[in-house]
Amino acid sequence: MTSVDERPPSDITTAAAGAQDAVCAASASDRAAWLEALADVLDANASELIELADSESHLGNARLTGELARTSAQLRLFAQVVREGSFLEAAIDHPDTSATPPIPDLRRMLIPLGPVAVFAASNFPFAFSVLGGDTASALAAGCPVVVKAHEGHPRLSRRVAALAVQALRGAGAPDGTFGLIEGRQAGVELVQAPQIRAVGFTGSVTGGRCLFDLASQRPDPIPFYGELGSINPVVVTPGAAEESRAEIVDGLLGSFTMGVGQFCTKPGVVFAPTDTELAEQLAERIGADAKPLLNERIGAGFRDRLGELAGHDGVEVVGGSAPTAEHSAAPVVLRTTVDEVLRSPQTLLEEVFGPATLVVDYGSVAELRAVLPVLPGSLTATLHAAEHEDGLAERLIAELSRIAGRVLYGGWPTGVAVSHAQHHGGPYPSTTSVHTSVGTTAIRRWQRPIAYQTTPDSLLPPALQEANPLGIPRRVDGVMTQPGETS
Amino acid sequence: MTSVDERPPSDITTAAAGAQDAVCAASASDRAAWLEALADVLDANASELIELADSESHLGNARLTGELARTSAQLRLFAQVVREGSFLEAAIDHPDTSATPPIPDLRRMLIPLGPVAVFAASNFPFAFSVLGGDTASALAAGCPVVVKAHEGHPRLSRRVAALAVQALRGAGAPDGTFGLIEGRQAGVELVQAPQIRAVGFTGSVTGGRCLFDLASQRPDPIPFYGELGSINPVVVTPGAAEESRAEIVDGLLGSFTMGVGQFCTKPGVVFAPTDTELAEQLAERIGADAKPLLNERIGAGFRDRLGELAGHDGVEVVGGSAPTAEHSAAPVVLRTTVDEVLRSPQTLLEEVFGPATLVVDYGSVAELRAVLPVLPGSLTATLHAAEHEDGLAERLIAELSRIAGRVLYGGWPTGVAVSHAQHHGGPYPSTTSVHTSVGTTAIRRWQRPIAYQTTPDSLLPPALQEANPLGIPRRVDGVMTQPGETS
Repeated sequence: MTSVDERPPSDITTAAAGAQDAVCAASASDRAAWLEALADVLDANASELIELADSESHLGNARLTGELARTSAQLRLFAQVVREGSFLEAAIDHPDTSATPPIPDLRRMLIPLGPVAVFAASNFPFAFSVLGGDTASALAAGCPVVVKAHEGHPRLSRRVAALAVQALRGAGAPDGTFGLIEGRQAGVELVQAPQIRAVGFTGSVTGGRCLFDLASQRPDPIPFYGELGSINPVVVTPGAAEESRAEIVDGLLGSFTMGVGQFCTKPGVVFAPTDTELAEQLAERIGADAKPLLNERIGAGFRDRLGELAGHDGVEVVGGSAPTAEHSAAPVVLRTTVDEVLRSPQTLLEEVFGPATLVVDYGSVAELRAVLPVLPGSLTATLHAAEHEDGLAERLIAELSRIAGRVLYGGWPTGVAVSHAQHHGGPYPSTTSVHTSVGTTAIRRWQRPIAYQTTPDSLLPPALQEANPLGIPRRVDGVMTQPGETS
Repeated sequence: MTSVDERPPSDITTAAAGAQDAVCAASASDRAAWLEALADVLDANASELIELADSESHLGNARLTGELARTSAQLRLFAQVVREGSFLEAAIDHPDTSATPPIPDLRRMLIPLGPVAVFAASNFPFAFSVLGGDTASALAAGCPVVVKAHEGHPRLSRRVAALAVQALRGAGAPDGTFGLIEGRQAGVELVQAPQIRAVGFTGSVTGGRCLFDLASQRPDPIPFYGELGSINPVVVTPGAAEESRAEIVDGLLGSFTMGVGQFCTKPGVVFAPTDTELAEQLAERIGADAKPLLNERIGAGFRDRLGELAGHDGVEVVGGSAPTAEHSAAPVVLRTTVDEVLRSPQTLLEEVFGPATLVVDYGSVAELRAVLPVLPGSLTATLHAAEHEDGLAERLIAELSRIAGRVLYGGWPTGVAVSHAQHHGGPYPSTTSVHTSVGTTAIRRWQRPIAYQTTPDSLLPPALQEANPLGIPRRVDGVMTQPGETS
């Protein structure tokens, strides 16, 4: 199969820039219809796409079916966001000569940044790839999108892109609204292209930091929204270990092996009381069945990191072993102590991408609390606690809130809901910005504010006209106002 | 007068980090009270502070009186913002097992980033300095603040800082909530200090870019909100020139000489039809009276940039002349053509900090529209148009919206209202981010989102508890809900 688009990558970026005005000017209902057309085309071609995805990612039919449904659902959710209109953050201040200094007629809203780049991830061939959350939120914001395909699933990427171009054309979107490029060098040039106004990225710390640096070093720096890597600590309190050890072992096993451990939210480090013997309990439950990893590079990376950990002083492999076959891995459980983590935080607290987790035994709550401050920024942090532990849960939640973007009380971090109150991001290195890449607020990454001063109604964007023709929520003279309410 | 604080700068940063938990945990009404105490202490010491400010900045009593009033007003506005509570962006999703994937109980809000650095500006010794908008918005967000004093007004900075420390202590804020440091090297180290989580900066492109690069190159990059430099283009259409030339000349003269041309929103480039003879008209009206600039460095910079412009091919000095006395400057009007600007955009379209403006004559509307795309990012862009120019105003507003953060229809960009719908920011180099440094949304720069999943009510922050004990607006299951409304 050849590339969907034979043009050089720079032509695709130029086409995106050419589409900017029309995409930005399209009405909310037009843009919503484009998003729904993309959702429809994914659903209509589900079986072909899932088969293609499985052949390139080995993630299996069940998982990929769910992921495709999530991907079309999130396109539809962004259609709703566009129609509802709060995402424009429209605000109107009527003149107030008594203010210091006086306030003229001022009207603020968010407008699209312009053409943006989206770097697809390997581990979610639908949800974080060609038509994933970054693309959906950027199109919703009114930004043309150039996707850099992930080399892990090139045929799927091209097929989805071809369907997307066709669906967008059918829904009346301007040519250039969406484009796909391939290859590492083309990606580097995309981040540096003068027309590109922001970058969304999901991938490794090394690759992401390199592109972040390029974006920051441009003559005109642009925002780089990178989701890089995360160890997603889990803390099991003494009370929880006593009350629910069996459930915790079950849940943790399911979570760290889900998707063959290739989730950005995989629980990679688990703190548990020494006498819980959590690692041993887990080790008894893991099977020896190896499952295929995404590709050879991921396999090699998994083996290398496991080797580094297993060879480290004070780290013990309690169950499973490093894979020998390049493409497959069975679960691995490692164990260490708080002292070792405090001695070598950088080595022990780096992400292992694959089905492994490191249990850190702690001897006392004081020891547990001493180690939490050294944890790096993570997408998630999970607490399993019991009632009546004398305010322990409260203190631990405060400490975990410092290092994570999502804090779970019970449950497991894998499986990221796509909703209004979701946040998928966290302190560096888990993300390079304070924004989310999942959920409706992800749209904010692709917008910038603009204010119009003393501008006649007829020259204002509809979102800011006095009569509120779009019928959207607005902040009027400081007060949040629903459509229909008197302003 | 000695420094307000004899401790080494790093101790002050450490103290800010030490205050972080208590500042973050303080209730909205406590934080609001701190801001009001700061406003009160400015007002109560106004005459002493204004005299000190005038002795160091030469900006005059009237201007400084207005600026101090604006500074205390903006502290009080942020107290209102904190009490109203929308700035927390609280959102609640109740569980929905029918969603793909299922939605657990999720609750999102914005929390303070942690200790932040604020670099004071020279040209607004109150409003963009020690207790200016950056400090007000950061304290409102719940972040301890370390201000790097501007060397242009050291005595004022120390006095305001001493009053601030006293007022904060009196209002019950924790020690370390606010600190002042001085000196270039201390500023560099502040941006690199591990405890600092974000930086606000107002100043030159050169200095700002240097600090932006340091912030981006940290092992853990942090947001750098810099307002660097802006030429604030003004476009006068043929219709406006015909209808209102006299008013335009008057208004422009007032605007470009206000504060001796040392405003970040000073109109630096004015496009007018050749036959308007706008430059000549302005030149007739400017006086030869020199007024003192902020300091010798600003004076030298003004002379150098004027010399560069005046010596450039095709640029003519139509009125005024470069100052000889180091500390004073009279207004200067320069003139050139669209062709020259297209030939040397980088030289001709760089900010001149001081009382000078460059009139660019255009021969036709086509020529005008050809030059607009080369304009650099600006804080503001101003259009003077007439009715019945065949959609010209609409097209020009679209073009100016691309390069500016605030678009004015009529009026002048100097004098920046502090309100909800204000936006003070624009494409690079006018700012290094998509955020504003003026108005209530400036608070967003100092916050990050966090989501809590399936967390018991008693362990949630009050903003997210089911009963809405803070009485704040929240998004509940996707719908904006006012306090008191059923969720």
